[in-house]
Amino acid sequence: MPALRTTMAVGTESGSGGVAESAPSTPMSAMTTTPISARSVRWESDMPDIEEGGGGLERPLLRRRGTNTTSQMAIVGANVCPIESLDYELVENEVYKQDWRSRGKLQIFHYQILKWVLALLVGLIVGLIGFFNNIAVENIAGFKLLLTTNLMLQNRYKAAFLWFISCNAMLAAAAAALCAYFGPAAAGSGIPEVKAYLNGVDAPSILAPSTLFVKIVGSIFGVSAGFVLGKEGPMVHTGACVASFLGQGGSRKYGFTWNWLRYFKNDLDRRDLITCGAAAGVTAAFRAPVGGVLFALEEATSWWRSALLWRTFSTTAVAAMVLRSLIEYCRSGNCGLFGKGGLIMFDVSSQVTSYTTMDLAAVVLLAIVGGLLGALFNFLLNRILRVYSYINEKGAPYKIILTVVISLVTSCCSFGLPWLTACTPCPPELAASGHCPTIGRSGNFKNFRCPPGQYNAMASLFLNTNDDAIRNLFSGGTESEFGVPMLLAFFTAVYSLGLVTYGVAVPSGLFIPVILSGASFGRLLGKLLGALTGLDTGLFALLGAASFLGGTMRMTVSVCVILLELTNDLLLLPLIMLVLLVSKTVADCFNKGVYEQMVRMKGLPYLEAHAEPCMRSLVAGDVVSAPLIAFSSVESVGTVVDTLRRTGHNGFPVIEDAPFAPEPELCGLVLRSHLLVLLRAKTFTADRVKTGAAEVFRKLAPFDFAKPGSGKGLTVDDLDLTEEEMAMYVDLHPIANRSPYTVVENMSLAKAAVLFRQLGLRHMCVVPRTPGRPPVVGILTRHDFMPGYIRGLFPNVLRE
Amino acid sequence: MPALRTTMAVGTESGSGGVAESAPSTPMSAMTTTPISARSVRWESDMPDIEEGGGGLERPLLRRRGTNTTSQMAIVGANVCPIESLDYELVENEVYKQDWRSRGKLQIFHYQILKWVLALLVGLIVGLIGFFNNIAVENIAGFKLLLTTNLMLQNRYKAAFLWFISCNAMLAAAAAALCAYFGPAAAGSGIPEVKAYLNGVDAPSILAPSTLFVKIVGSIFGVSAGFVLGKEGPMVHTGACVASFLGQGGSRKYGFTWNWLRYFKNDLDRRDLITCGAAAGVTAAFRAPVGGVLFALEEATSWWRSALLWRTFSTTAVAAMVLRSLIEYCRSGNCGLFGKGGLIMFDVSSQVTSYTTMDLAAVVLLAIVGGLLGALFNFLLNRILRVYSYINEKGAPYKIILTVVISLVTSCCSFGLPWLTACTPCPPELAASGHCPTIGRSGNFKNFRCPPGQYNAMASLFLNTNDDAIRNLFSGGTESEFGVPMLLAFFTAVYSLGLVTYGVAVPSGLFIPVILSGASFGRLLGKLLGALTGLDTGLFALLGAASFLGGTMRMTVSVCVILLELTNDLLLLPLIMLVLLVSKTVADCFNKGVYEQMVRMKGLPYLEAHAEPCMRSLVAGDVVSAPLIAFSSVESVGTVVDTLRRTGHNGFPVIEDAPFAPEPELCGLVLRSHLLVLLRAKTFTADRVKTGAAEVFRKLAPFDFAKPGSGKGLTVDDLDLTEEEMAMYVDLHPIANRSPYTVVENMSLAKAAVLFRQLGLRHMCVVPRTPGRPPVVGILTRHDFMPGYIRGLFPNVLRE
Repeated sequence: MPALRTTMAVGTESGSGGVAESAPSTPMSAMTTTPISARSVRWESDMPDIEEGGGGLERPLLRRRGTNTTSQMAIVGANVCPIESLDYELVENEVYKQDWRSRGKLQIFHYQILKWVLALLVGLIVGLIGFFNNIAVENIAGFKLLLTTNLMLQNRYKAAFLWFISCNAMLAAAAAALCAYFGPAAAGSGIPEVKAYLNGVDAPSILAPSTLFVKIVGSIFGVSAGFVLGKEGPMVHTGACVASFLGQGGSRKYGFTWNWLRYFKNDLDRRDLITCGAAAGVTAAFRAPVGGVLFALEEATSWWRSALLWRTFSTTAVAAMVLRSLIEYCRSGNCGLFGKGGLIMFDVSSQVTSYTTMDLAAVVLLAIVGGLLGALFNFLLNRILRVYSYINEKGAPYKIILTVVISLVTSCCSFGLPWLTACTPCPPELAASGHCPTIGRSGNFKNFRCPPGQYNAMASLFLNTNDDAIRNLFSGGTESEFGVPMLLAFFTAVYSLGLVTYGVAVPSGLFIPVILSGASFGRLLGKLLGALTGLDTGLFALLGAASFLGGTMRMTVSVCVILLELTNDLLLLPLIMLVLLVSKTVADCFNKGVYEQMVRMKGLPYLEAHAEPCMRSLVAGDVVSAPLIAFSSVESVGTVVDTLRRTGHNGFPVIEDAPFAPEPELCGLVLRSHLLVLLRAKTFTADRVKTGAAEVFRKLAPFDFAKPGSGKGLTVDDLDLTEEEMAMYVDLHPIANRSPYTVVENMSLAKAAVLFRQLGLRHMCVVPRTPGRPPVVGILTRHDFMPGYIRGLFPNVLRE
Repeated sequence: MPALRTTMAVGTESGSGGVAESAPSTPMSAMTTTPISARSVRWESDMPDIEEGGGGLERPLLRRRGTNTTSQMAIVGANVCPIESLDYELVENEVYKQDWRSRGKLQIFHYQILKWVLALLVGLIVGLIGFFNNIAVENIAGFKLLLTTNLMLQNRYKAAFLWFISCNAMLAAAAAALCAYFGPAAAGSGIPEVKAYLNGVDAPSILAPSTLFVKIVGSIFGVSAGFVLGKEGPMVHTGACVASFLGQGGSRKYGFTWNWLRYFKNDLDRRDLITCGAAAGVTAAFRAPVGGVLFALEEATSWWRSALLWRTFSTTAVAAMVLRSLIEYCRSGNCGLFGKGGLIMFDVSSQVTSYTTMDLAAVVLLAIVGGLLGALFNFLLNRILRVYSYINEKGAPYKIILTVVISLVTSCCSFGLPWLTACTPCPPELAASGHCPTIGRSGNFKNFRCPPGQYNAMASLFLNTNDDAIRNLFSGGTESEFGVPMLLAFFTAVYSLGLVTYGVAVPSGLFIPVILSGASFGRLLGKLLGALTGLDTGLFALLGAASFLGGTMRMTVSVCVILLELTNDLLLLPLIMLVLLVSKTVADCFNKGVYEQMVRMKGLPYLEAHAEPCMRSLVAGDVVSAPLIAFSSVESVGTVVDTLRRTGHNGFPVIEDAPFAPEPELCGLVLRSHLLVLLRAKTFTADRVKTGAAEVFRKLAPFDFAKPGSGKGLTVDDLDLTEEEMAMYVDLHPIANRSPYTVVENMSLAKAAVLFRQLGLRHMCVVPRTPGRPPVVGILTRHDFMPGYIRGLFPNVLRE
């Protein structure tokens, strides 16, 4: 069976012990009609066909590389790596029951306390990291800009430009080098990866400590380098990494481990903690605790429950409080160049409490155009990422070169565009009070080569950190500060730079480019419609940002709440809501949200909440892989080891047969990880007899079977068995999950998919409908529900 | 089998066609060990035992009445009525497939548009109702208070008191009469009922149009009558009723129907719409759109998905905008006595941006005491409701008398307490500007018998609408307005009145009593700690309200956001969060949230998100009812009709047997409602042959099988079959759900419960583990997962 062997080869090649779920071989129904070779040819030949069929944007990047047709590999950051599934099923075997019985009140209390302490600790640490990030960025970028300005004040323009551009390039190169050599999984925003993890996709590098380190340092360098990118997306990833680090009890690789975290050694508790971490990340980025919770709920997680709402909220509350008190401390000037705070915080004040019909019409127009531009952004980003993936996959040096090139382009824009912009006279009242032009780092009115009493509007936006630029754009009561041509030029530049920057190999968030271009677009439109509406241009900028966020990310409630928390003005709510409703609806007509697009493009096997319509015409038995590999309830050690070596499967049905049952029946499901632990303990017998659980518990504690962190744990190669031992028998009863979830083979695939996703399963047994057949006819895994896989098996079904 | 017959008798007695799910008869395992009578005796005799076992507060009210031991009946409002389950499963039979195949792009578009139009319409209507409620209350209560004040100004104190008390009593009697005779389901807050409905519990009266009418009018009368109760809970119920009314396509009973709503004739779409309605209700009550969404998510629903977040948010946005624009219109004085708006809207301004450790300690103290008092409130409320239920069940006149008595007590308090309170001199600066004392209806400083230049603090709170009282308590910068003894008296009065008022038969929300007593408690504590902290007493009042809300309702995120939206000040967030975290944690040590308590007490079979630990020791086969009633795939009409008459079951497995299959196998599951439609169409054959789906579709359209609104639809008595027809056969293949969800009999009950709840099922087939037995051994329904039922079957398991 060639397909099987291919998959395994890929898994081995990457050398990380990441193993394939269930290799796609022959589906049962196909087996009865077409010979295997014929079908596999059909699968191969079908691929280009689909590409032409308009599915270009949906196609994952990996397909084109030809190394993988089974979606067992995916791109994490800028790194191709093997992926596994997480398993949220309660494995009800003897081990679990023993563990559960042995837990007293004290252990349960320990567990509860631990859950809360960890959640609050995540909030604390993420809050600290968020603060540290801001301090670092403000100081590095501040120093860079201060020196540039000083050189310009001395009329040493060339030196200023050289300092500026080389400083940016060096920072960019440093970020890219870190990313390329040390933590390729840290490239990009990280939100698609976190989203996939919370959907049940696991790759060791997604939340590894090295990723965490590169994400933090790389993000600081990247933002300081003046790129049009944000630290918000990376903060979400950072929060998730911190949570994962704590939840796994530290890192064995780097020598930090806490063994008292044993109750947390399961995917479910880790998932909850990582959800808290992601929410805390948003909070630390935007100082928006409610927005953080809603972001986690709306965008990040696939499973949610009421208890989690409460814990997530506590985490974000802690993060917000830490951040707030530290910033309070910095206000007194203890933090170097840290000025008003790198966290964007706006001062749009809405004197408006009533709007005319004309105002509403203007806002709707803004939302429609914002939605269109947002959808266009997603489309273009997709194209650009495809081009970049060719460059990035050539190797680390190419990644660095690409990053430096983009950095040079950005620097030229930042420095060149103000050069081309004419000076504007200061508003008389501000000039009198000495607020215009500003010479120092912050302030709305940058001097930049202008004579006294005048300022350069473009420099006020471009020669600044992105946060300050956004604050300038959003500021109210500054109707005449930015002219129409200048805003148009800035919008075009930022929109294009945002597109070309995202794909480079540095941690880069999308929030800031989208907010920045949205705000300039909104302000531009506000200026153009100025005569018709009474709304402030700063408010227009805010609404423009909302329309872009709705148009690209398609988040509604969370964006709305984040913007409210940033502006601290709830009276803006109706307008922001209206804009988001319209822009999302408009953009949804064209394509999917940017993160969903990216999840697909990266080849992450994301389970959608709704089954695709085509699945309704198929039944579970149609997609299940054959031949099924099952074990006897008391199996020879040799067979087990051999099977584990030969296949990459993670779950095996156990069949109770003679002499233990008169006719074969389903005993349960064993997991690879449990088998390995059992085999290493060597509780073997010479004859084929039941040893029972007691024998196992003499050598092993329930905790030995707990799931280690991702990428850790035993592999087959860790076993050291003699020839005699291989000929003995091992009793699988104690580790068999006695109540696996099952579906009947004629269950429609759509319903099976709903079941699989809702319960967060990794394996689902397919049982026969008619009597007189083996008790299990196959196992469904995440992979079997992927539209790409089904499309390969049944090209005609999807064409319907 | 006596148990079975009892259940049916109850169902018939109520005469509403509401039928029991699966009558609790003998569980399979018990059958093998104990004779039936012995077991049922054990069940009966066990009840008092459990009562003593500390489970008193958990026990549903219905148990004591002895009419029901099967939890097929529950209290809705003040009405005992039969309940059914909702079914969110995709019934994949031929009818469904035919329907799905026949839907073109246009139909799908129609459905999508309809979904959105309905959601927005719900927002619009609920916004309008919320506004109407406010106008009505403000005008009725305003007129009442104005006349009272005028009489007092003329020194006609007795007349004033008589007018006040009789006016209140009449309004109370009117509300109670409406509730008792016309819509008993409208009594109380309605939130427990909505919570239960969204969990899958259906009773025709929960969301009936009569309930809607009584809820609106009764709530207006009740609030105007000066009770210590709110209109917020009833608004949530109103919102859900409006959504249900629209989603069912109007009311057939009252002659409003829309037939173009055919795509909405299923439980899933109705559930989504009702979720939107509940959220819109909160929004209309508090003018808090984000809070509304979070309330629906945190407290109301049991199932949530990302798409719903977006739709709910749109609904609340519309409701908020409608409300805002209408209130804007009223500001110009077009709405009679409608003053600042009945919607509580506070003006706590937080000049404080930093807190000292002492401030935080004071706040934590407040939160702890608030949590304790909140838990005490829940405990006492539970006791009082038990007493009231004796009175209420005696009949409608008793309900009215109870209501009037409570009204008299409340009136005496409102009028008497200010009488006993000494006058306070006005603050000089306010007295000079003429703001103190106030003679008219609104304003902080009520004159009430005081000489000029003085005011009566108690009257400012008590002789006012509740909303105005809350506004007064929350107002900042009014340190000396209310004295400590006065606040203590007011707190005691409001706390007690809130407790005794909730159980009377009028629509009554809990938010206002809790906020009112919390605010007075907070202000009191603020006064006492005044020397130690620099926080404003108005802020203390707000935090006190938060601590009570956290202590009674145990909602966190939604309460926090609602309070933020009411105060429009996000800087308060960290303090409110801290208070909620502490008070909820403290209160959780003592009892459950007030709504959860009430759901249990009312006997509503609510499925918890987590399976009880005891369920881990049981397997699905243990609780399943026997004997199983199944149909052949082609069954005699007589047998079907007879079974439908004899049992109350709603789902029947269909077994494919000879001659259609060599050995019996599971064909699917048919629903009672589908069977009735099929039987009425009379597609019968004389011989036992398959007729196929085509025959059915000649007489029936897929839409004929759509689920009608709750309490509607065919019953067995609607069938009119001759003797010959009864002897014929009917082919059940076309209506059999070919892929019902199944579990193996040895699946642990805990896992089965998770499956059942997550997928929102009504029936789950239990299949045998060993070969050679019937293909289905039982059906699990909601009832089988109720702890009370399991406790009856296995008293020892729960004692563990």
